[in-house]
Amino acid sequence: MLIKVGIIGATGHTGEVLIELLLGHPNVKIAHLYNSGKSSPSSQAISDVFPKFKNRLDLICKKPDWAEIKNDCDLVFLALPHTVSMQFAPKLLSLGKKVIDLSADYRIKNTLVYERFYKVKHQDKVNLKRAVYGLPELNRAEIKTAALLANPGCYPTCAILSLAPLLALNLADIDSIIIDAKSGVSGAGKKLENEYLFSEIQGDFRAYKVNVHQHAPEIDQQLSKLSGKKVEVTFVPHLLPIERGILETIYLKKAHGSKLKAKSLVELYKKFYQGEPFIRIKPEGVFPRIKDVAKTNFCDIGIKDTGKGIIIIGVIDNLLKGASSQAVQNMNIMYKLPETAGLL
Amino acid sequence: MLIKVGIIGATGHTGEVLIELLLGHPNVKIAHLYNSGKSSPSSQAISDVFPKFKNRLDLICKKPDWAEIKNDCDLVFLALPHTVSMQFAPKLLSLGKKVIDLSADYRIKNTLVYERFYKVKHQDKVNLKRAVYGLPELNRAEIKTAALLANPGCYPTCAILSLAPLLALNLADIDSIIIDAKSGVSGAGKKLENEYLFSEIQGDFRAYKVNVHQHAPEIDQQLSKLSGKKVEVTFVPHLLPIERGILETIYLKKAHGSKLKAKSLVELYKKFYQGEPFIRIKPEGVFPRIKDVAKTNFCDIGIKDTGKGIIIIGVIDNLLKGASSQAVQNMNIMYKLPETAGLL
Amino acid sequence: MLIKVGIIGATGHTGEVLIELLLGHPNVKIAHLYNSGKSSPSSQAISDVFPKFKNRLDLICKKPDWAEIKNDCDLVFLALPHTVSMQFAPKLLSLGKKVIDLSADYRIKNTLVYERFYKVKHQDKVNLKRAVYGLPELNRAEIKTAALLANPGCYPTCAILSLAPLLALNLADIDSIIIDAKSGVSGAGKKLENEYLFSEIQGDFRAYKVNVHQHAPEIDQQLSKLSGKKVEVTFVPHLLPIERGILETIYLKKAHGSKLKAKSLVELYKKFYQGEPFIRIKPEGVFPRIKDVAKTNFCDIGIKDTGKGIIIIGVIDNLLKGASSQAVQNMNIMYKLPETAGLL
Amino acid sequence: MLIKVGIIGATGHTGEVLIELLLGHPNVKIAHLYNSGKSSPSSQAISDVFPKFKNRLDLICKKPDWAEIKNDCDLVFLALPHTVSMQFAPKLLSLGKKVIDLSADYRIKNTLVYERFYKVKHQDKVNLKRAVYGLPELNRAEIKTAALLANPGCYPTCAILSLAPLLALNLADIDSIIIDAKSGVSGAGKKLENEYLFSEIQGDFRAYKVNVHQHAPEIDQQLSKLSGKKVEVTFVPHLLPIERGILETIYLKKAHGSKLKAKSLVELYKKFYQGEPFIRIKPEGVFPRIKDVAKTNFCDIGIKDTGKGIIIIGVIDNLLKGASSQAVQNMNIMYKLPETAGLL
Repeated sequence: MLIKVGIIGATGHTGEVLIELLLGHPNVKIAHLYNSGKSSPSSQAISDVFPKFKNRLDLICKKPDWAEIKNDCDLVFLALPHTVSMQFAPKLLSLGKKVIDLSADYRIKNTLVYERFYKVKHQDKVNLKRAVYGLPELNRAEIKTAALLANPGCYPTCAILSLAPLLALNLADIDSIIIDAKSGVSGAGKKLENEYLFSEIQGDFRAYKVNVHQHAPEIDQQLSKLSGKKVEVTFVPHLLPIERGILETIYLKKAHGSKLKAKSLVELYKKFYQGEPFIRIKPEGVFPRIKDVAKTNFCDIGIKDTGKGIIIIGVIDNLLKGASSQAVQNMNIMYKLPETAGLL
Repeated sequence: MLIKVGIIGATGHTGEVLIELLLGHPNVKIAHLYNSGKSSPSSQAISDVFPKFKNRLDLICKKPDWAEIKNDCDLVFLALPHTVSMQFAPKLLSLGKKVIDLSADYRIKNTLVYERFYKVKHQDKVNLKRAVYGLPELNRAEIKTAALLANPGCYPTCAILSLAPLLALNLADIDSIIIDAKSGVSGAGKKLENEYLFSEIQGDFRAYKVNVHQHAPEIDQQLSKLSGKKVEVTFVPHLLPIERGILETIYLKKAHGSKLKAKSLVELYKKFYQGEPFIRIKPEGVFPRIKDVAKTNFCDIGIKDTGKGIIIIGVIDNLLKGASSQAVQNMNIMYKLPETAGLL
Repeated sequence: MLIKVGIIGATGHTGEVLIELLLGHPNVKIAHLYNSGKSSPSSQAISDVFPKFKNRLDLICKKPDWAEIKNDCDLVFLALPHTVSMQFAPKLLSLGKKVIDLSADYRIKNTLVYERFYKVKHQDKVNLKRAVYGLPELNRAEIKTAALLANPGCYPTCAILSLAPLLALNLADIDSIIIDAKSGVSGAGKKLENEYLFSEIQGDFRAYKVNVHQHAPEIDQQLSKLSGKKVEVTFVPHLLPIERGILETIYLKKAHGSKLKAKSLVELYKKFYQGEPFIRIKPEGVFPRIKDVAKTNFCDIGIKDTGKGIIIIGVIDNLLKGASSQAVQNMNIMYKLPETAGLL
Repeated sequence: MLIKVGIIGATGHTGEVLIELLLGHPNVKIAHLYNSGKSSPSSQAISDVFPKFKNRLDLICKKPDWAEIKNDCDLVFLALPHTVSMQFAPKLLSLGKKVIDLSADYRIKNTLVYERFYKVKHQDKVNLKRAVYGLPELNRAEIKTAALLANPGCYPTCAILSLAPLLALNLADIDSIIIDAKSGVSGAGKKLENEYLFSEIQGDFRAYKVNVHQHAPEIDQQLSKLSGKKVEVTFVPHLLPIERGILETIYLKKAHGSKLKAKSLVELYKKFYQGEPFIRIKPEGVFPRIKDVAKTNFCDIGIKDTGKGIIIIGVIDNLLKGASSQAVQNMNIMYKLPETAGLL
């Protein structure tokens, strides 16, 4: 099978990584690359934007062309900033194309929450309802038949996978969850702002959006769904002086009356994720580091019982499992390909 | 006044930084530099070890010489690994010298705890009793008359200063304290181990000694003293890919029945630390970053009330306020000098 | 076609990268992984050495087993330190195996030169004679039939490819060549030495082995062969505070009487390397940077005529085109596979 | 003596470092801080711009106020971009103030050259004539009486000091000089441009302005003055992924007929710079690294004779000896203070 794909938003971080992945995918042909239509310059060779693609992909990245998309693409990836994706998705769906959206536009079901955190009105409530949240390990069945897939955020991917077994099995005190998250700089995209200059990041470390980050409600929504109860986590993200990678240190207490022990925790996680090709659970007392998953689609998880509570550490590559390779994993599922195609 | 000082352990990280500080101190003459007596080579020009001191300090770093120390030094800094300091302190004290120990040997009053975390028997229980814990902001009166000063650990300095107002005033739920700590690599000293190679650290981030780090009991001891109750914190240190600096993100709940509000928290901290030259409290909603205190003796603190609990972020330079400049601050107090001499 | 390969020296930098590449190669099965037989521990799961290979390659890395190699391997990669490779190659060749050696042992044809720079006697002069220097762009015909392939050094790969057109066409003043080379830390392998600690490398930059580096004679040998005259370059390597990548800034004068112009230089380079899948020549006035080739098998080259002389800048990824991916490129040629298989 | 200084351009890199130095200078009072008058916001607490100055310097940085300057300042530092300094210097001089300009505006005596490299007309040719080039080791006598001091560029400081002995003594083939220069990112100031983002710099290394950098004519002018002949160097700057520091690797041939030997070269340099407090010459065969001079006003130099030519490596901290601390050194000379005051 050969899937013909288009990418709208090909010149950002996630677009760049997506191209890299799709070039190595045995079942994909990159048909067209587009910008958001508002970029300047309006059209550029992708190998001028990213010289590393010279002699590998000689496409022009240009303004979206609906006729071309209609004829040439099966699937379109939206590697766009939030609020921009929802300007493109309805038209693509109406043309019968499958859509994988890497922005936040179709992740939050409650539009009031979306509007509070993203500071704009939601403009496509119709499609929001049918959008499928693309976390394969928890949602594979729905993904198979999705027309519009909302690819998860980077922090939520790591947080939800790290917490899912405890919440699904009602073993956590859901009021006690604290997520101390640390991310490489690429998590912020390619913003030209003073705070992302080399001289500001190098040698520094800082928290930002302390307990008000827009990924918190996405985590809350999915954990609430898993546990059947309203979950509200404490979430503090920090900026690491590295390019890629997320590590989240998660603290919680056991559900009242729970008699879980450390060893059984590790076993429980292994069982919960049995057969999952991209989840790896560490032995008791061992914790993953960012290097273990850099440049891969894996999520590695370590767990410890302190007596007073549970400490979980999860790691992913924010541009891969936290964005572009998870999008490819979702594509593989949507097209009944082997889930690891192009990813191992 | 001119204090004649010796440094034993001059070739490590804290020794190097201590020399730098003392070279710029108006009331100090560096009389002699020593190694631990077991180093090879047995004697080296300090400017061969650190070429940056060439033409600035042309002393030889050699085996400790007791006669020389007796004649030429008023005060001796021990910039040694733990378990080594206690081999030198008794003799120095018996010669009537003042001693500032930068190791952990005289910090933990309970020798059972010391022995559990540092894996050796304590060999100088007599002087351990008289040693003064050198956190000036909490202990200035005792420091003034100390003969043997135990300079605090880097993580504890940041943690204790960040938590002291709440604990001293009984405003914290002492069972709820979680310290998620991140440190630059110099915190580990100059160990030649695989895990400290550039290729292992660069681009990585990881937790280590999860809830079993030797600084946890030091924090517990001081917080228990402050609050009058037994405190046991959850403490998870992480390794940042930077040279210097510590940031600690601290989570806790308010004491039962407390009606504190965010704004009053900031006011409370400002009042608690009023007049302190090296403590800076951020305005409400603002948090410090490592760059704010790098290369200084400051500890900057930000506080937020989330409704569910309190988030505190404290930062220090681990080699300065977390080690060498705090040692100089303590020296200033011990010799009745202005507390900021050589430090601003 | 499926090539069954073994790797001796699988736990070093080049071994690690080689495994990564071969896992994604459509025509390769990794049959066995070996250490040098002197390692401790004597046997380890490769996924314990490199947790990132967990669930991807569950082989044990152990002492070389000749019977096993005889039965199970077509080709063996030697990812060993110099002087160690020549202890293994003769036996492997006698078993009829093809050998690709990533060390320096079979690169230098003059054993006196080898012995001067590598400080040991050469122990396998018989096979040294038949070894083929594996720089595909200059030596493809010989590589096709090689039994023992000497994979080039990282600095030489970049230097020779950057200079080859001028030397092959007698356009350079061969006495004037100066190579100012800068490499990431991985070029030094995984040595546990003080100078490779994070605290020594981060924020620093330095020259080393100024004009006495062991790669200079390798460059001289190949450039002399190309030009038909004795070439001796001035070569100064420097250590960059990054993990991967080499950039070489090369200065030379034109051959006496040459009337080359800048534009024709670029054209000349493009023509010389026409059809080469992994060489990219920059337009006039544009120079490559390390990011252009990081994580790829490309060598990118920019050229400028200053009037007084020529400036050439070449870049490669030292672990890839400078080591492991060039080894795979050579394997592809030796087995008549498409030269880009597993590499694009 | 207490010098009352103003700084115009206090919020840039060199301004920040200058404040840090002047705060520790025993003979300086920082009277006022100003922006260029075109900044937004028009007025800010310096401790809001740089939180590290909180509680140390509580001045407002505002629009220049001529009456205030007239009354309160003896000396004004211009830490401004080139073309902006020459808008302020004439007025300051007319008020009888001494001026130290850290920009390029008064360095190049030939205004045609200035205009070619800086792309603007020179607007203050009168004062350009009387401006003194502030490289103390070569120009101390003139500096003593300067009213307008042109503080040298970072690359030129390192290049000129590294080459001066050979050129002053006519020992160099002046047509052969190649300067391969590498600088940390702070050399570019605080420009908000894509190329200075963390994600662009980290893990990368690149050349820029190859042989067309504006510091080349400044180097040429001073070397020509030293040697009495027209010198034109080949100059290729590169961008290091570090914050601070310059290393220049310089290649040249000996003057025809010169019989210098390596050892005598080192002796010659030591003699040339005898008594200089901030120049350190390495022993034969030893080369300086950036860490040797980071955070200091030193310039360290190593030299090697290769037989074919001479290799010199010089290092400075670009923000200190290459900018702000050299400005303070010049101030010390202008006010007859000890030259090392506030700098050691």
